[in-house]
Amino acid sequence: MAIRTVVWGENIHEKTNQVVAEIYPDGMHSTIAKALNGDAAISATTATLQEAEHGLPQSRLDETDVLVWWGHKDHGAVNDEIVERVAKRVWEGMGLIVLHSGHFSKIFKRLMGTPCALKWREAGERERLWTINQRHPIAAGIGEHFELENEEMYGEQFSVPEPLETVFISWFQGGEVFRSGLTWRRGAGNIFYFRPGHETYPTYHDVNVQKVLINGVKWAYNPEGALKSITDAPNVPVEKALEPIVERGPRLHQAGEAGYR
Amino acid sequence: MAIRTVVWGENIHEKTNQVVAEIYPDGMHSTIAKALNGDAAISATTATLQEAEHGLPQSRLDETDVLVWWGHKDHGAVNDEIVERVAKRVWEGMGLIVLHSGHFSKIFKRLMGTPCALKWREAGERERLWTINQRHPIAAGIGEHFELENEEMYGEQFSVPEPLETVFISWFQGGEVFRSGLTWRRGAGNIFYFRPGHETYPTYHDVNVQKVLINGVKWAYNPEGALKSITDAPNVPVEKALEPIVERGPRLHQAGEAGYR
Amino acid sequence: MAIRTVVWGENIHEKTNQVVAEIYPDGMHSTIAKALNGDAAISATTATLQEAEHGLPQSRLDETDVLVWWGHKDHGAVNDEIVERVAKRVWEGMGLIVLHSGHFSKIFKRLMGTPCALKWREAGERERLWTINQRHPIAAGIGEHFELENEEMYGEQFSVPEPLETVFISWFQGGEVFRSGLTWRRGAGNIFYFRPGHETYPTYHDVNVQKVLINGVKWAYNPEGALKSITDAPNVPVEKALEPIVERGPRLHQAGEAGYR
Amino acid sequence: MAIRTVVWGENIHEKTNQVVAEIYPDGMHSTIAKALNGDAAISATTATLQEAEHGLPQSRLDETDVLVWWGHKDHGAVNDEIVERVAKRVWEGMGLIVLHSGHFSKIFKRLMGTPCALKWREAGERERLWTINQRHPIAAGIGEHFELENEEMYGEQFSVPEPLETVFISWFQGGEVFRSGLTWRRGAGNIFYFRPGHETYPTYHDVNVQKVLINGVKWAYNPEGALKSITDAPNVPVEKALEPIVERGPRLHQAGEAGYR
Repeated sequence: MAIRTVVWGENIHEKTNQVVAEIYPDGMHSTIAKALNGDAAISATTATLQEAEHGLPQSRLDETDVLVWWGHKDHGAVNDEIVERVAKRVWEGMGLIVLHSGHFSKIFKRLMGTPCALKWREAGERERLWTINQRHPIAAGIGEHFELENEEMYGEQFSVPEPLETVFISWFQGGEVFRSGLTWRRGAGNIFYFRPGHETYPTYHDVNVQKVLINGVKWAYNPEGALKSITDAPNVPVEKALEPIVERGPRLHQAGEAGYR
Repeated sequence: MAIRTVVWGENIHEKTNQVVAEIYPDGMHSTIAKALNGDAAISATTATLQEAEHGLPQSRLDETDVLVWWGHKDHGAVNDEIVERVAKRVWEGMGLIVLHSGHFSKIFKRLMGTPCALKWREAGERERLWTINQRHPIAAGIGEHFELENEEMYGEQFSVPEPLETVFISWFQGGEVFRSGLTWRRGAGNIFYFRPGHETYPTYHDVNVQKVLINGVKWAYNPEGALKSITDAPNVPVEKALEPIVERGPRLHQAGEAGYR
Repeated sequence: MAIRTVVWGENIHEKTNQVVAEIYPDGMHSTIAKALNGDAAISATTATLQEAEHGLPQSRLDETDVLVWWGHKDHGAVNDEIVERVAKRVWEGMGLIVLHSGHFSKIFKRLMGTPCALKWREAGERERLWTINQRHPIAAGIGEHFELENEEMYGEQFSVPEPLETVFISWFQGGEVFRSGLTWRRGAGNIFYFRPGHETYPTYHDVNVQKVLINGVKWAYNPEGALKSITDAPNVPVEKALEPIVERGPRLHQAGEAGYR
Repeated sequence: MAIRTVVWGENIHEKTNQVVAEIYPDGMHSTIAKALNGDAAISATTATLQEAEHGLPQSRLDETDVLVWWGHKDHGAVNDEIVERVAKRVWEGMGLIVLHSGHFSKIFKRLMGTPCALKWREAGERERLWTINQRHPIAAGIGEHFELENEEMYGEQFSVPEPLETVFISWFQGGEVFRSGLTWRRGAGNIFYFRPGHETYPTYHDVNVQKVLINGVKWAYNPEGALKSITDAPNVPVEKALEPIVERGPRLHQAGEAGYR
């Protein structure tokens, strides 16, 4: 069965900015989903900010294996309750790929627990992405490096937690560097941040970028099924201890009582 | 100058539970602060839930090097605004030590980005903490292991992010294990989670526990001063690029405009 | 195509110790290989210390996707040249699974760069392995924990580098704990250390142990092919720089000269 | 007491290459040691390849807190026995700072367990080092970035294990990037690799480079004393088990017998 992937797009600049509309007439999310669907192992659909529940009702998330997130102009418009819903699905095992300006999305900041800030410059300069581990699944088929002739610059310090692995580092024409491909695991969920993708450039039409996205979805996919218990804090009563023990000393909780949260 | 340390205590069970009140007549926070003050390099004071702003006004946090956090009964009573204030100070470089049931505190969950759940049993069983890296600063003077004759059991899976380093792992009489000493860095702030400390047992009177707490404060202390810029996302205009570049292609932002958040 | 797996066995105690011979009449390596072959995705064969080149000529290693290593009695008998050959294949992308007493094998110590020491006790005590991340691919189908009624104890401190991820932690009846499932990446090669497997107990006949081994082989397998260039240190001449630069200042090497090693 | 630091220099190009001799008339090791001695917390001396036992007899290593290593032309001339001696001291807790072309030194490859290869270009191009964590102790006083106008280029992929933390990343004028400040822990020893330092440029006279080296020595210093037991594999006999257990099943070893290595 194909990896059920939802590409979430903010879908604002595509409607309001002439440059963006011309590059992505059907929206960035559609371009990305189309690229993912180019691989038979992936079945991608889209969701946008403007839809009811931003297109992410619980029932749909429950049947989503990997969520791809692009937002920029209006992170604040994303409903907090839906952010929590997405976070819980990631902990349960849904993969999450966060793109470019999504570094400041509520969901990414929620899962990182850090500011996720960086420096930036919008000058259409050259970006060169270097592969740090050429046999990392996310870098499959990429080689030593690839270039994007026009991109927004993102510069370090990128205030995220130390990653599980650094997959790409970007060189920028104007003199900066940036860790542009990073992975983390949160609960049972695999998270991949991928830097490129400023909306005024045709980045998601680039074949290497598309290859990384396809690899990323495959890497983030956890086939083992949802770990629904990830938020549980079960009491193990003395009489069910794996080794026989006798209760000693005072306790706060009555038998069968839940713990405090 | 001594490390300015604030020990934050929820201070509820000490007032409402006879057993706890007898073990910690002045509150757990006072016992911990007194132990820390036994080391000349540390200057510890206390703060509690019941104080104005929970005893953590911005002015005090700005002069705090390390914050120690113990809470259990009423995590929900901690004001969200103060949680954000503490998180920002951690990102800027304030050390944070989270104790025992503080695994479910708002501030710990905020900084981890995960459920921080675990299994538990209140049976006064034996806990033996094994040192994973005997020369880690937090384990200084501890040796291979130490025991607590009566403790609450916490069992894996502990749903936190993969740590920077595992310092201690606990063995429990009833058959479970738990990663009981873990470190992370978030922004410029060092975070240490230390498992023992159930309020119905005299854990914070234990000399090894006190030693770990003293070590933990010293480890968490970042002498370099607050990195106030940690949440900034500065624009670097083309004319200030470190390497001379010429602007190419369209852009979204006018000169001097801030980025979206 | 199935994952080409070689199970390497020292094959000494099976020949010299009556107890071991009765549990593993065809050798531990054969029992393990048979278990792996129970999964259609894996094609496992065996190699032993006593064969020419220990059964690991370069031509065979070049066609091996994952190597499983069990040794104990005579680590020193393994030829240093073959150790280097195996190490290079791991860097190129061959997966490596090191079992039990293999912690002191030359190849494991070579790849870890540490003593890989631990404490031990041979008393047939109960071991309980706890899953730290229940959705890690290596833990697929394992659940929260499983037990081995009789095993040798291994205790911390286990002097290996901080792992990529901790998959299992063991509880021992006699009071110790041990990180019994750990992963690392070295070059393009995935490495998994799995603790159980003392030769005087029927550990490799255990269904959970077999499941972990199968999972481990699948996890360690890198389908991207050998990264032959992993040991290269190529010179990039000025005229082939990706950005036009002019040579400035003195240099040590003549054009086309290799670097020092 | 000051941190007892030994700066080890290969001391070949200083004697044989006119350019190097003019920049470092007393040898690179002397320049580095002098810079370190500029900080009252450090007491640095030197050792060179040409001295008896390369200036590193066991008695001296036993009284060394941090070793700084620079080599390039003749890594192969370093005696294997001395490499093992140094590795053991690192595991016991001696800090190690490896500089520039030391990436191919025997001691660094020994402790990493990987090829430690990279690409390079000797063109005197500009290197800009970006600080990834501005409050990491090694980056104290460095700020966001600093530049070296003329340096040799090192480019990724740098085949080392995923580090504990990435402290600096370099941007090169010719288009490459490199993780130029990385940390690891091996046993009780802290290891820091710092990229700059090609011998035909005056890098070790640079004030920022000197600051990083001073910070690095302070960070690598482990005040807790040597963990001599780091290579031991002690048997814990049944009668000394921390929890009372009864021996069950067969065993290989007689009471008091050492394990196999």
